[in-house]
Amino acid sequence: MAPLTPRLVVPIDVKKKPWEQKVHLHNRWHPNIPPVADVVEGELFRVEMVDCTGGRVRDDDSADDIKFMDLTIAHYLSGPFRIVDSEGVPASPGDLLAVEICNLGPLPGDEWGYTGIFERDNGGGFLTDHFPSARKAIWYFEGIYAYSPQIPGVRFPGLTHPGIVGTAPSVELLNIWNERERKLTETSHESLKLCEVLHQRPLAILPTSENCLLGMIEKGTAEWQKIANEAARTIPGRENGGNCDIKNLSRGSKVYLPVFVEGANLSTGDMHFSQGDGEVSFCGAIEMSGFLELKCEIIRGGMKEYLTPVGPTALHVNPIFEIGPVEPHFSEWLVFEGISVDETGKQHFLDASVAFKCAVLNAIEYLSRFGYSKEQVYLLLSCCPCEGRISGIVDAPNAVATLAIPTAIFDQDIRPKRLGHGPKLRRTPDVLRCT
Amino acid sequence: MAPLTPRLVVPIDVKKKPWEQKVHLHNRWHPNIPPVADVVEGELFRVEMVDCTGGRVRDDDSADDIKFMDLTIAHYLSGPFRIVDSEGVPASPGDLLAVEICNLGPLPGDEWGYTGIFERDNGGGFLTDHFPSARKAIWYFEGIYAYSPQIPGVRFPGLTHPGIVGTAPSVELLNIWNERERKLTETSHESLKLCEVLHQRPLAILPTSENCLLGMIEKGTAEWQKIANEAARTIPGRENGGNCDIKNLSRGSKVYLPVFVEGANLSTGDMHFSQGDGEVSFCGAIEMSGFLELKCEIIRGGMKEYLTPVGPTALHVNPIFEIGPVEPHFSEWLVFEGISVDETGKQHFLDASVAFKCAVLNAIEYLSRFGYSKEQVYLLLSCCPCEGRISGIVDAPNAVATLAIPTAIFDQDIRPKRLGHGPKLRRTPDVLRCT
Amino acid sequence: MAPLTPRLVVPIDVKKKPWEQKVHLHNRWHPNIPPVADVVEGELFRVEMVDCTGGRVRDDDSADDIKFMDLTIAHYLSGPFRIVDSEGVPASPGDLLAVEICNLGPLPGDEWGYTGIFERDNGGGFLTDHFPSARKAIWYFEGIYAYSPQIPGVRFPGLTHPGIVGTAPSVELLNIWNERERKLTETSHESLKLCEVLHQRPLAILPTSENCLLGMIEKGTAEWQKIANEAARTIPGRENGGNCDIKNLSRGSKVYLPVFVEGANLSTGDMHFSQGDGEVSFCGAIEMSGFLELKCEIIRGGMKEYLTPVGPTALHVNPIFEIGPVEPHFSEWLVFEGISVDETGKQHFLDASVAFKCAVLNAIEYLSRFGYSKEQVYLLLSCCPCEGRISGIVDAPNAVATLAIPTAIFDQDIRPKRLGHGPKLRRTPDVLRCT
Amino acid sequence: MAPLTPRLVVPIDVKKKPWEQKVHLHNRWHPNIPPVADVVEGELFRVEMVDCTGGRVRDDDSADDIKFMDLTIAHYLSGPFRIVDSEGVPASPGDLLAVEICNLGPLPGDEWGYTGIFERDNGGGFLTDHFPSARKAIWYFEGIYAYSPQIPGVRFPGLTHPGIVGTAPSVELLNIWNERERKLTETSHESLKLCEVLHQRPLAILPTSENCLLGMIEKGTAEWQKIANEAARTIPGRENGGNCDIKNLSRGSKVYLPVFVEGANLSTGDMHFSQGDGEVSFCGAIEMSGFLELKCEIIRGGMKEYLTPVGPTALHVNPIFEIGPVEPHFSEWLVFEGISVDETGKQHFLDASVAFKCAVLNAIEYLSRFGYSKEQVYLLLSCCPCEGRISGIVDAPNAVATLAIPTAIFDQDIRPKRLGHGPKLRRTPDVLRCT
Repeated sequence: MAPLTPRLVVPIDVKKKPWEQKVHLHNRWHPNIPPVADVVEGELFRVEMVDCTGGRVRDDDSADDIKFMDLTIAHYLSGPFRIVDSEGVPASPGDLLAVEICNLGPLPGDEWGYTGIFERDNGGGFLTDHFPSARKAIWYFEGIYAYSPQIPGVRFPGLTHPGIVGTAPSVELLNIWNERERKLTETSHESLKLCEVLHQRPLAILPTSENCLLGMIEKGTAEWQKIANEAARTIPGRENGGNCDIKNLSRGSKVYLPVFVEGANLSTGDMHFSQGDGEVSFCGAIEMSGFLELKCEIIRGGMKEYLTPVGPTALHVNPIFEIGPVEPHFSEWLVFEGISVDETGKQHFLDASVAFKCAVLNAIEYLSRFGYSKEQVYLLLSCCPCEGRISGIVDAPNAVATLAIPTAIFDQDIRPKRLGHGPKLRRTPDVLRCT
Repeated sequence: MAPLTPRLVVPIDVKKKPWEQKVHLHNRWHPNIPPVADVVEGELFRVEMVDCTGGRVRDDDSADDIKFMDLTIAHYLSGPFRIVDSEGVPASPGDLLAVEICNLGPLPGDEWGYTGIFERDNGGGFLTDHFPSARKAIWYFEGIYAYSPQIPGVRFPGLTHPGIVGTAPSVELLNIWNERERKLTETSHESLKLCEVLHQRPLAILPTSENCLLGMIEKGTAEWQKIANEAARTIPGRENGGNCDIKNLSRGSKVYLPVFVEGANLSTGDMHFSQGDGEVSFCGAIEMSGFLELKCEIIRGGMKEYLTPVGPTALHVNPIFEIGPVEPHFSEWLVFEGISVDETGKQHFLDASVAFKCAVLNAIEYLSRFGYSKEQVYLLLSCCPCEGRISGIVDAPNAVATLAIPTAIFDQDIRPKRLGHGPKLRRTPDVLRCT
Repeated sequence: MAPLTPRLVVPIDVKKKPWEQKVHLHNRWHPNIPPVADVVEGELFRVEMVDCTGGRVRDDDSADDIKFMDLTIAHYLSGPFRIVDSEGVPASPGDLLAVEICNLGPLPGDEWGYTGIFERDNGGGFLTDHFPSARKAIWYFEGIYAYSPQIPGVRFPGLTHPGIVGTAPSVELLNIWNERERKLTETSHESLKLCEVLHQRPLAILPTSENCLLGMIEKGTAEWQKIANEAARTIPGRENGGNCDIKNLSRGSKVYLPVFVEGANLSTGDMHFSQGDGEVSFCGAIEMSGFLELKCEIIRGGMKEYLTPVGPTALHVNPIFEIGPVEPHFSEWLVFEGISVDETGKQHFLDASVAFKCAVLNAIEYLSRFGYSKEQVYLLLSCCPCEGRISGIVDAPNAVATLAIPTAIFDQDIRPKRLGHGPKLRRTPDVLRCT
Repeated sequence: MAPLTPRLVVPIDVKKKPWEQKVHLHNRWHPNIPPVADVVEGELFRVEMVDCTGGRVRDDDSADDIKFMDLTIAHYLSGPFRIVDSEGVPASPGDLLAVEICNLGPLPGDEWGYTGIFERDNGGGFLTDHFPSARKAIWYFEGIYAYSPQIPGVRFPGLTHPGIVGTAPSVELLNIWNERERKLTETSHESLKLCEVLHQRPLAILPTSENCLLGMIEKGTAEWQKIANEAARTIPGRENGGNCDIKNLSRGSKVYLPVFVEGANLSTGDMHFSQGDGEVSFCGAIEMSGFLELKCEIIRGGMKEYLTPVGPTALHVNPIFEIGPVEPHFSEWLVFEGISVDETGKQHFLDASVAFKCAVLNAIEYLSRFGYSKEQVYLLLSCCPCEGRISGIVDAPNAVATLAIPTAIFDQDIRPKRLGHGPKLRRTPDVLRCT
């Protein structure tokens, strides 16, 4: 007889604060954050998690909570887990850790989520120059489907995934991160080409002890202070995986993570009911609390066997993913295109970020013809299962990027038609504003 | 009774040179290139085309033809076609032209193609700093499938598409193009951030009368000279569509093109048997001659109705696409990831081009562990149906891009496995080199 | 604010017997079984259910429980639910009841199931003449995936569905059922053509008060006795839906049920983690306890508007289903064919049942070449997501039926290959036998 | 260098009669019909074919040609081909012949097809008791799509396939066929259960020399007469494959055929642009002329290795198929259900043919509510890519069969809706009648 249910390794009580949970959470990357549990390879285990803000966004009528969000706190992670083999030998640096996502979903009793536009001065987003003010939409789940009272006329199945899955960095890797990100922030903005086009600030989010949560390490101790000063923030995806926000990493997927410290120290968090490629509004997925059912395998020596560093050290590697057979599938897509010419008409050189910005703007303008406000579409494209593609990256000077939207998520036909044939429904109410 | 077969509007004889074809071809964008035929909306018509180089690449044992390719000639286009409604009134500026791709394929009797790496000094490509030397692979078609003697062990169904579909630009739009692209080339390379990472040159490809072919306009006349000096090159995709290289624009798809001149003046060319997102090696799709069966619809006033310019003028718009239900589909994918940290370890700010470069490099390194040379993989990723995604574009400072490869195209299991369980077949012969 | 979680209408405690559950279950169809709850259209509600046998099959090493199963008890249903509109007016005869399956799955803490071969003398199955002895396989779930220690080398995602969803019959409809089924059993077997080929007995399963469970109606009362004598058994699917065993009726699907009594009196049960088309071994799906999250809509007058009876009365109608976009999908299938010539070589006239029997036998024989016992394959084809098709029904005298099996569920390549190239793994252990 | 185009083995000139073609056709199965060409395994070859009636159905305004069709002529086959290995050794009895369908389609210049209802007294069909009169619809192709002026408002991509692919029977197998089919016709109709429900006649179609065409064997000779008297008709699918009408056997598929005679003697014909499962109206697919591009492989000894006879002799085997990754796919389906209770209300025992008849009748009744005549729907369900499933075959006494229709083929939303919300377009004109 096998165990009939996964072992619950991290339970979450959503009525409690993130720092009050029975098994301690953390919100930084550091090799010295101690594991909260051992997991044996092959074992099916269940990890619950708070939403990325730890409950600070409410199901109410105002976007104030989004506007004044303290971004030093995100994201709360469950873990780390020390992964050992059947003989108790932990994963070692140089191994690959294969993590299968056997199942996931919202936490029972907490089946709702939100998506928001961060204020330009507090987080921003991909189009923050176009959408500088905080907004919010609430999503309710009906099983696999989500709908929002603030974005009427759309309903879609979730391609639910954890925004963050990662292993702990080694000290050496952590130093690499901190150094390269600090250098970037020290660069004068004027010298960075993309800063003309992408207005999100700051350029990088450096370590800070403010609101730092380090699992079982007690706040205020010397150890806590040292780690807090060094520990990497969780916003960007990096060599250890982390906040990759890959929307297809859903049920039945596998991620192969490099192991940098003994035991691998796997952490996860930031569950998304659904997200569009790019997660353009930044607080852009349907953020929620949730659970994961995971199974791990240690591929001994797998980093050397399978990963070749692309960068100056042996640590400059990236995870590999495997996508499973259970994604929602859509047979018809409407596709918007952008080239690397920005809104001012300026030509950029093969810049996929600029091209994608243009594609997203085109999509927003187009869909706003169908009765939506532009804020509604911006939020929708952040969280619906749309695909952002780099279609051409060699036809100088224009990169071509595309954004493909499944037409079936709308309750009207959104394809271009001869005049007089297209429905033009006024979509009310609108997304939530600040009070 | 309907006509039982599409009307052949442009026939191609692949034994003749591009300039010897019965219906004249052209290789530039200009409003004054005269239409070669009228097409009525609703009519099914067939357009044949030469391959992008007009037959200069041969099915032989050397990459010399790729190395010494004269890039002033590409691409040879079929058209322009003047689109009129059932009462003979032509499409007008401000309309949308819906072009349905009812069918397409190789030209009967010419069922083969090629993919190449351009020499660094003559074209380059996305990874030209890593792959500076010309290479070539020949692909043979077995109906829907392609295989290459130079890249053994892979076979895949084609997601065949025309690299180029576009309408003629107006004079005003042409001027915008020429001006912005000229400005870019006049920029000192050092001031352009991406030039450190993307080594393809020149930055833009400006008008030249060299090898200019202008359809029915006789070479050497004053009119020819004037147009040749002004006409835009066909390499980049732009507001008129053009060389968008969107690999999913295949059978059953539709493209909605803005109309800038009377009659729309639709042209098409550069057929690809298959291409990966990005077309990374530049001469990267499986290039071939081919045919299209098209059907047009004029949506009167559609530009105003559906497209909002993203840019300083009313002409700064982009086409929209619609993807149909007949793509090959794959249920399992292996996904490689890149973040916007380049090969030197330098941190870039939300740069999707850098992140995608890293993802492609990771994929090449990985697959080369399975018995392939890196050149084989570079060519394979250029032309197989892999998907390039912008997964995250807000998690500063790292853009996250992914490259997803369908595992079913390989004759071995390419997923990571415990050591000793993975086949390691030596794949010979290799891709073709110069003599 | 919407409710953040579905309302739990029927809770199940799997440690209790079916007749001890807090909300009473039933195992017959009858108009007078009283509703256990009201449900308002639009409301999301949760229904839990026991497995079809109410816990009589155990996760042990013997098929004895299958062999001696008392078939008078199956299936235990949750419900009936009285469906009312937002003003409290119940669904009426002549309406259509649209039931959306928003979500479903195993009961937390009880994530396992079983599939069995009934003994020939006690239930039988589609191939009971070939497989007369009771067998059992246990399946464990790893999130979306199931695997069985008794059928090694296969693992597949569940296309989970309730075997039974139905509305209560009216008295008139119940009488029609009882009369036509009684007539069938009274027919001499010899006069029924298919009895030569399909050996499952009895021909129909008539009302009996033995083991009858009627919800809130107390056993032994006069009312109970009357209903028990009349109430239809739950084995066959009928006009009210019922045990249709349509394997694609999974997450995101909708079923449109005719309403025969006031309130509709919706019941559901017999959850399957996965099932193959045909459910050939009879106890053939992966049977389990589970939960459903449902949402109902009343389409007033919908029976008249949408359903035309095919039969002698207005009650001879059938439900309609709508399949959603979230099924597991497989890109490669191996397909076995059967024609309506039986195992003795006898020609039947366009008989799809005979053809399908032949297709299933062919599949069993074929897969047994890959190291499996025939019992293993019989059970596997009963429960894996294989598709049974009627391919040709007009090419007299042969009906052609096919059975398509997704190749990705196996850990070996099961396609025919040149000799010496096919793996032949011995698959042990075998399925469970009786002690 | 590989050959750049498939070798054309059978050319067809559709302006000529079937018996005037350059390479002789045949319309019977017999071991002594001589091969028209040798084909080497691995070679890509092209086979053209006439439509099943050899051009007797015209694109005109009357169903007379359908009504008076001489059914002794169908189907005209291209072949037989003698398959040899690279050393010239032919396929031998006991081998498996793997035939890959690399490509297929309509013949250039002949891009149209038809679908018809045979008159009850001349062919009939699955629902001939409901639709006794001849009808016809013409379909025009727009590349991958088909539409019919007689069935407005539907358009769908073809899942094109050859209705017939088969190897020649041995004398022994031919005798088995003739004997069992003759026996069936000699059975009194009254003793056959399905004859009450399925009214298609005759029960089997026995050998006749009338309109017999035997390839290179000259008509009227003694040899011709002998073969003509023995040769099996092509209507039913049998152990050699033949008219299996499996709609998914399209581009990229493979069929593994048993070899019964030296050289295998592969024949093919009866191309369908599209067909629904069951091909219910008998002349039910979109019948057309066409071409195939094929590639063969001989699996030596494969019959013994892979096929176990289900029947009294070693010849009672069936082909196996492999479905490829390029089918059109649809994400939403409306599904109709039938149980084995016939139109008179009579209960049948687990009869999938009766259940499927009921499902098809339900679908016809339902769709006729959307502005279609029942004849239009009957023809549509015969030829559109609908799926006929055996969902339950064990829940005695009811077999459950389903018919799933992709909703995207209609230009209106065909799902049930609250009254007043469903479009009800009158669909004119109707299908063609006799004059």
